[in-house]
Amino acid sequence: MRTLIKDTIEKIGETVTLKGWVNTKRDHGKLTFIDLRDRTGVIQCVGFQKMSDLTPESSIEIIGVVKKRPEKMINPAIITGKVEIDVQEYVVLSKSETLPFDMGQQTLNLELPTLLDHRSLTLKHEKIQKIFKVQAALADEFRKSAEKLGCTEIFIPTIAAGATEGGAEVFQVDYFGHKAFMTQSPQLYKQIMVGVLERVYTIAKAYRAEPSVTTRHLTEATQMDIEIAFIDSFDELLNALEYVGTSMVSNVSKNYSQILEEFGVDQPLVPDQIPRLTLRQAQVIVTKRTGRDLSKENDLNPEDEREICLWGKEEHQSDFVTITHFPTKKRAFYTMPDPENPEYSLSYDLLFRGIEILSGSKRINDYQQLIQAMKNKKVNPENFGMYLMAFKYGMPPEGGFSFGLERLTMKLLELHNVREASLFPRDMERIDERLSQQSSEDNL
Amino acid sequence: MRTLIKDTIEKIGETVTLKGWVNTKRDHGKLTFIDLRDRTGVIQCVGFQKMSDLTPESSIEIIGVVKKRPEKMINPAIITGKVEIDVQEYVVLSKSETLPFDMGQQTLNLELPTLLDHRSLTLKHEKIQKIFKVQAALADEFRKSAEKLGCTEIFIPTIAAGATEGGAEVFQVDYFGHKAFMTQSPQLYKQIMVGVLERVYTIAKAYRAEPSVTTRHLTEATQMDIEIAFIDSFDELLNALEYVGTSMVSNVSKNYSQILEEFGVDQPLVPDQIPRLTLRQAQVIVTKRTGRDLSKENDLNPEDEREICLWGKEEHQSDFVTITHFPTKKRAFYTMPDPENPEYSLSYDLLFRGIEILSGSKRINDYQQLIQAMKNKKVNPENFGMYLMAFKYGMPPEGGFSFGLERLTMKLLELHNVREASLFPRDMERIDERLSQQSSEDNL
Repeated sequence: MRTLIKDTIEKIGETVTLKGWVNTKRDHGKLTFIDLRDRTGVIQCVGFQKMSDLTPESSIEIIGVVKKRPEKMINPAIITGKVEIDVQEYVVLSKSETLPFDMGQQTLNLELPTLLDHRSLTLKHEKIQKIFKVQAALADEFRKSAEKLGCTEIFIPTIAAGATEGGAEVFQVDYFGHKAFMTQSPQLYKQIMVGVLERVYTIAKAYRAEPSVTTRHLTEATQMDIEIAFIDSFDELLNALEYVGTSMVSNVSKNYSQILEEFGVDQPLVPDQIPRLTLRQAQVIVTKRTGRDLSKENDLNPEDEREICLWGKEEHQSDFVTITHFPTKKRAFYTMPDPENPEYSLSYDLLFRGIEILSGSKRINDYQQLIQAMKNKKVNPENFGMYLMAFKYGMPPEGGFSFGLERLTMKLLELHNVREASLFPRDMERIDERLSQQSSEDNL
Repeated sequence: MRTLIKDTIEKIGETVTLKGWVNTKRDHGKLTFIDLRDRTGVIQCVGFQKMSDLTPESSIEIIGVVKKRPEKMINPAIITGKVEIDVQEYVVLSKSETLPFDMGQQTLNLELPTLLDHRSLTLKHEKIQKIFKVQAALADEFRKSAEKLGCTEIFIPTIAAGATEGGAEVFQVDYFGHKAFMTQSPQLYKQIMVGVLERVYTIAKAYRAEPSVTTRHLTEATQMDIEIAFIDSFDELLNALEYVGTSMVSNVSKNYSQILEEFGVDQPLVPDQIPRLTLRQAQVIVTKRTGRDLSKENDLNPEDEREICLWGKEEHQSDFVTITHFPTKKRAFYTMPDPENPEYSLSYDLLFRGIEILSGSKRINDYQQLIQAMKNKKVNPENFGMYLMAFKYGMPPEGGFSFGLERLTMKLLELHNVREASLFPRDMERIDERLSQQSSEDNL
């Protein structure tokens, strides 16, 4: 019967069977020290033998006795720091080849390309694993808050007949001889579905064939989407997105405070009321603080986002700032223009610590207005038959928003590149392994 | 302040604001009867006015007084059957066009192609909505049981450089001029990830370019996958899959018993021990019961699956039967052959009421053995660099399984076609709208 490493501290004096990976191994003359790692933690194992067949990352089974460590040998940094295992026997379950680099460092100091070239190995590093434990927790908190809002989970397709939101940045699929596309977002289907279930959520893939390599874009990303209907006001949407955004971030930060500490990240500042600014108000503030003239700009650039977040932190003790009313022409066709000034739209972004983590809007729910909006944006309504059908049959006032899971994970742990927050990141230069220029020409 | 329909029964005598869709409308001279539908139910509303602008499926707001119905007018079939709304005012939020067919029937009697041609409308039918409430509940129960097994949720890619499991039935993507493929399953990535996190689960898309139209295949399906490492025995895997399979089905059936009743489906039979048979044992039983000689067959065909499930029900009071030890040559390259008889493999299917709802196996975890197994199956190891890397660095003994969400939903509600259990089903003839033969030639 296997004992998990975290449970050894309750079993002092007992003989236990542990299973895990050799995290590190140190030979000290007659003694061998193994740090054994399983999904619950790491524990020091001491053997009076050479154990020469134990290579780092090999998976092994150890039978041994749990012993208290001498007082001065206690390691307060880990929960098993007060005990160690006196190894009686061990079995190698699967021997690891020699590692291409030392995995025993507290932080794996590798350049990003090397980290990704060896992804199946580097993911095994304890600190890298923690990124994905936080990611799983974010997704879980997202679902919990969506359920609290009364949303039903939906499972929607990613292969579509038309480019979801128009534009050229779509991946094309050969669909039995027909041209099809990978969806750029779950947007259109979640909108159809609020016409059915009123309130829906989905965690879905978004595919963007952006021919650029930046630190915050992936060609295949995970989106967490919510859409709600029968809304009374624009504020109802803002309340909902701030509720989901802040409770995700706060709960995960609280429940994984040790991981945040290890990554050198503070607990997030979440005031009772998140500061809300229109784009134009935000621009005036940035101009005041920096002298930069933004009056001709129709969006916030990354520098502006960082500045307005500094303002939010200084003036409102908030790591979040909500920005509303982006110019209608800068937003997708389904975005509702502000009836009081249609040049601007009932749209919003949620910024967190200098970066946009959410985007969304109130939607156009009138069929004729939607057709007109498509035409204005040079989107052909003929390619959106199933979507438009939903608006013919009583689509209520509605809106929604979308979080990027990888980007949120990146920002919460202050990683430098969104690829670090994706298990197997896709970009234009890589599908697991690097795509060579050569094969690009040969393959098609 | 909006009142949800289900909450009206607590508000007798009060004036409430309801929002929803006109489910049905009946004119009785001076009186108009509206059945109003929101996400929580349906309620009868009575107006002393014509309400001639209210068309079925329009979304509306009603202000009215909650009244007790006279004793003989009570409808015991619905929770709001004891009350009705005396309409004071109403507002049309979004007027529906004339429906192409009557949506007011208890069951929507349409041929499948019609049902799908009008999917954005037909999904709004109450009984069809319920299919997807059950589906959401199945996914939720899946996650709960996976968490109880100690699994971490993972988010893995669907664009791959090689065809996941070999074979020709893959969708090809143009990836910046490179040839790429949509994954046929999350299999390879979840295997890599048990080398990292030991126990993982994912709800992911599986793409199969099967050029055939059957009642149980989709080209884009939702898979619920679990993979666990450091297993002691084959039985440990069987215990895990039976736990997840039966608890999903039992919990959803119990929590949604009214929906099951409406679909005319019995509560599932789940004995303490699910009957387990090897393929050969199952074949002998089918032969005994039907006289059909299966000794040359290497799999169960749909007829056999139904027969062995009848046996399970009659002999073991079980709606589930676990079948193990399929021939090694019939299973994917990563399947572990049975060491005692390598012609057969440590593989399994879980049958539920006559159909396979789960498939899986113990995996080959030794690097050299895996390379050899690939070569035997004519799979080129060069296309699986990132996958194989995981096996170089200490992959423990492991195995896993996978449920098809749509197929399980179909079977639990005894639907006739898996397309009914997919919000927007994809098959070779349809991406929302039907694909014409014409465009097949024109488009590429």
